[in-house]
Order: sequence, then C-alpha cells, then structure tokens
Amino acid sequence: MTSQMAREIADQPAALSRTLERLLLLRPDIARLAKGRRWLMFIARGSSDNAAVCARYLAEIHGGWNCALAAPSVATLYAESAPKRDLSDTLAIAVSQSGSTQEIVQALEWAADQGAATIGVTNVADSDLARIADLALITDAGKELAVPATKTFTTQVAALTVLVDALSPTPGALDADFRRIPEQAEAMLATDTNVLDQMVEVLKGTDEVLTSGRGITFGTTLEAALKLEETCLRPVRGLSYADLKHGPMAIVDAELATLLLAGPSGPTLPGLMELATSVRASGAPVLGIGGDEAFRAACDLALPGPDLPEVLAPTVLPIPAQLLVERLARALDLDPDQPRGLKKVTQTD
Amino acid sequence: MTSQMAREIADQPAALSRTLERLLLLRPDIARLAKGRRWLMFIARGSSDNAAVCARYLAEIHGGWNCALAAPSVATLYAESAPKRDLSDTLAIAVSQSGSTQEIVQALEWAADQGAATIGVTNVADSDLARIADLALITDAGKELAVPATKTFTTQVAALTVLVDALSPTPGALDADFRRIPEQAEAMLATDTNVLDQMVEVLKGTDEVLTSGRGITFGTTLEAALKLEETCLRPVRGLSYADLKHGPMAIVDAELATLLLAGPSGPTLPGLMELATSVRASGAPVLGIGGDEAFRAACDLALPGPDLPEVLAPTVLPIPAQLLVERLARALDLDPDQPRGLKKVTQTD
Repeated sequence: MTSQMAREIADQPAALSRTLERLLLLRPDIARLAKGRRWLMFIARGSSDNAAVCARYLAEIHGGWNCALAAPSVATLYAESAPKRDLSDTLAIAVSQSGSTQEIVQALEWAADQGAATIGVTNVADSDLARIADLALITDAGKELAVPATKTFTTQVAALTVLVDALSPTPGALDADFRRIPEQAEAMLATDTNVLDQMVEVLKGTDEVLTSGRGITFGTTLEAALKLEETCLRPVRGLSYADLKHGPMAIVDAELATLLLAGPSGPTLPGLMELATSVRASGAPVLGIGGDEAFRAACDLALPGPDLPEVLAPTVLPIPAQLLVERLARALDLDPDQPRGLKKVTQTD
Repeated sequence: MTSQMAREIADQPAALSRTLERLLLLRPDIARLAKGRRWLMFIARGSSDNAAVCARYLAEIHGGWNCALAAPSVATLYAESAPKRDLSDTLAIAVSQSGSTQEIVQALEWAADQGAATIGVTNVADSDLARIADLALITDAGKELAVPATKTFTTQVAALTVLVDALSPTPGALDADFRRIPEQAEAMLATDTNVLDQMVEVLKGTDEVLTSGRGITFGTTLEAALKLEETCLRPVRGLSYADLKHGPMAIVDAELATLLLAGPSGPTLPGLMELATSVRASGAPVLGIGGDEAFRAACDLALPGPDLPEVLAPTVLPIPAQLLVERLARALDLDPDQPRGLKKVTQTD
C-alpha cells in the first residue's frame, strides 16, 4: 500500500479526530445561525454532493429538519431569468473540499441574496467559500493530493453530522459515541485483506458494478459508486434499493456485481438483506459492507462496518469501500492517485 | 411499428390534449390549495420521479418556488423513530401512474400528518392516491399496457407543468403555447426514421450509453436513461453535464455512446453544445435530441426537438427518445412491451 490514496485513507483516524475536536465546539454557533429557520438546503457537486445526500437523511431522521438538495443551475444559469425567491426560512449549506468551485460559491451567494443564512463546509480555511459564508465549518483533513477524495469526504460527513447534531432536539446526546469515531475509523483500516482481495477478484471479473443502499447509507452508496467508477474506469451506478426495483433490476444478472452498503442497525437493514438474497438468486455476485451478521451471511463476501449508532456510522462506513477501490485500481494496473481525465478541483458553471 | 409501446407512443398527442383540457381548468383550485405555502415537496419513484425532477426545475425557474424532492424512506421506514416534522409551509405533490404504489401513498399520508397540503398526480381516478390527496390531478392518458411508461410520463409532465403555471407569478401567460403542445407532439412523431435508424446502429454497436442534459432537460435526461436501460437491458446513466465533469468524464471513450437532450433555447444550451464538442473530441459518438441548429451540428447525429418555449418543451421532448428506445429494443430482438424482470406496478416499502 504505497499509493498516495492509500496513505490518505490511512490518515482518516487522525483527520476525523482533529475535525471533530474543532467542530463539536461550534455547535452553539450553528444553532444560533439556524434560529428561526425551518429548512436546510444543501449545495454541492461530486463527492461533496454525496456527503450532502448523507446529511439530508441525517438531518431528517436525527434532526427532524425539512431538507432540500439545491439544483445549482437554478442559482447560476437561470438566476437572471427566474422570479426572485424567498429563502428567509432557510439555512443554506454549501459543501466543497477546495472551497473554490465557482458554481458552488456562486450558488451560496445566490442563496444569501434570497435571504438564506449560510454555512460553508470546506477543507480550505482561506477559500472563497469560507470567506463568503456566515459560518465556515473547516474540515481538518490536511492536504489531499490524490484525486479521489477519501479523507476530505469522511471529514465532510463528520462536519455535517456535527451540524445536524447541533440542530437536533437532543444536541450532545451522542457525544460519547462521537468520541469513538476515530477508533472506529482505525478498526475499519484493519479490514481483512483476504476478503478485500477476494472482492477485488470478483470485481475484476465483471464488466459492470452496481452499488446499493438506503436511507442513512445512501450517500455512502453513491460515493462508493463514484469512486469505483472514476478510479477503476467502469460504469458504476449507486441506487437506492427502492429505485433499483423500478427498472434497473432488469439488468441484474451474473455479469453484474452488486456492492451493498448497510448501516449497523436501523429500519433499512431488513430490506437490504432481502435485496442481497434476491440479487444472489439471480446469479449476480453480492458483496456487502456493514450490516449485522445476518446481513453479511446473506452476501457472497462481506466486510463488517463500524460499531456505532446508525446515525454516526456514515462517518467511517466509506473506509472499507475506499480500501477496496484502491486495491482494485492497482489490480487493474491503473493509478489510483490520478484517474484518467480528472483534475483535483473541477470547475463547473 | 406494431408493438404496444409504439401504439402508446403514438397516442400522445390525444393523451396530452385530453389531459391539458381537463387540468388547465383546475389552476384556480391548485392556487387556492397552495395559498400561504412556501415550499413544494415532490414524492415519487421511477419514471414518475423523473417527471418530478422536471417539475422541480420548472417550479424554481418558471414559478419562483422553493422545491424539495422527498426521500420516501424518511416517511415510511424512519417515520416512527424520527422527530416529528413541521410541513405546515409545504404543498406536497405525489406522482404515481397507478396511484397504488404503497410507498408513495404512505409518504403523502405522512406529509399530510406533518401539516402539508397534498396533491396527487395519477392516471387512475379511483386509486388510493387520488382518494387521499386534497386535490387529485388525473392525467388522461388512457390505459397503458406496455411496461415502459410513455404516454403516462409525458402526461405527468404536462400535469406538473400546469401545476407550476398555476403557482407562477403569471398564470395563463403561456396558454397559447400550452394549446400548441398536442400539435408539437404530433411533430415529434414525424421524427426522421432514417436518423433514428442510424442512431439505433450506433447504440447497437456500443456496450455503454450515457445520457446528459441540464436544468430544464434534466428530467428528460434521467427518463431517457431509465427507458434505455430497462427496455434495452444495458446499464445507462443519466447525468447533468456538471456532474459528468465530476468524475464520470473519466470513462467517456469511444466505447461509450452519449445521448444529449437539449431544450429549444435557454441558458443551458451553450454548455450542452460545448459538451457535445468535447465528448466528440474524445472519440465517443454523440447523439443529440432537441437544441438549436448549432447544437445539432455539434453532434454526430441529431433530431430536432419541439418548437415551444423552454419551460413547455419537456412535455414532448421525450417523444423522439421513446421512438429511439422502441426501435433499439426491436433491433436487439428484445420485447419493448415486457422488459425482463419488471412489472407494470412496482411495490416498494
């Protein structure tokens, strides 16, 4: 494991520890900024958007907040021609590793112009995003050099989990578990390399890969798909298991490997176990990450996820998937650090 | 053209005409129900969710409304354990062809329990969804027997366009153009079969297909991807061009065909033209539907879209894509009416 991506994956216990230490203290400021607001609107693209998807479930399930994911083009391309909006009931939260993707910065400025309070979640303290937001939540991941986001993704999820906790009916109630996140990240780094290698063999042998999860693990599902695709250059979709049944189920067959991501507990677990069973029955290999023992027994190959409450699990559940992607890239003779055609900071308008 | 799907595609001018005639009259009722509300929340899955994505752009761009797409699992699986929500500022709109997908019906009931006013958009007047909603917008597509939704999709988009118009700052301002929708659907049915056949040849020769669009055409983009995938049994993604640049661009190469969907005008057109040019430069074949002449000239093969204002175009823009999917299915010796493994009504929890 000598790639930069592998080193950054291994950085995560320390990165999460630093980020949580810094941001848990800001919960009163977050709560103050949200006072009187009724909606959260997340603004993001790419990996950061996957963190935002995770946060929207957390905020609805743990926080009881109404949530929307912004369509950035409404704020950028269409802003001139569209009627003025009223976002005086909204806390807008933009997420960008670099804090310098112009589309995201511009969309947060637009939200402020329509009356929203604003938060920027970024890894760069002196970025445009940090500068223009009412409050900046700086992740403390350290510099990330590999193109695929790993530690900046999990620290974004951690920052957004802190934000949701600050706005929940019971802020602080999970603090003992928050403190266990770095040690759980450590546990994920000790993932069984034999099973990882067997999973790599399965994925090497298939042309198509699909990831699935639901609810609290849906953001991780999308992120695992994006990482597998950009790093390993094969088309990969991330689908909720409900959406999977609406159409794409038609293409599940022995040539398509399915990677399922499950939380340690919670109401989506039975459905994911049933999905594992029915996909296997169609002859498709099923790989699982997380869940309980019964879930893992329903998969062809499985790796345990973290031992954390369901709402905190997404902070470290991505780690086994990152390890898998990095190994798969090397097994395919690809450079995990520099996927073809991608830059570290993507500029979109 | 003897498949059921082909007949239902050909039904669309009449189906759209009936649906618009019925629903344009309901605009005062829609406006009354929305009075004092500030947010629209759409609840849907599958094709209906693609219609909802279209509606959220229409509502933001044409209506000036704040919009959210609901995560149904929050309303079904997590409702018991999550804190009570306040949706007293929200008009919730559930979209389901059959009106009997339990997850969608249950999610709309949940929204009402949290204080939302409710609308159901469905093709079945005596369905559960029509019964429980404060107001039912019944599409008048007639019975749809082929599994892939065609006329029920475009009539859903038409119903949602009427809804947005009712809530816009200028209801009725587009009425002359609303009346031209059926004739524009007719024009789409006259799509050049030579070009369609050439597109079929391109798609037959590639293992992977990607669809892309943006803003007002993003819902059509997702729907074209879903139809291509479920009917033609190949993995197909629909991506906004901004998301495409965040990662998936890495897998664009000569083996991947790209189908671009563009509106007749509007601020997303220059970006889609640029995308056509850059994807072609990578050696990937680019097929285009809609746009202006310059956009079509930037594609390898292209078909014109409707001659309508940008916000009304999504009602008929899917038609050339439907024609393409139906022909491709037959060219692949597949049954367009009955894709493998799918049922007409999908039950999810």
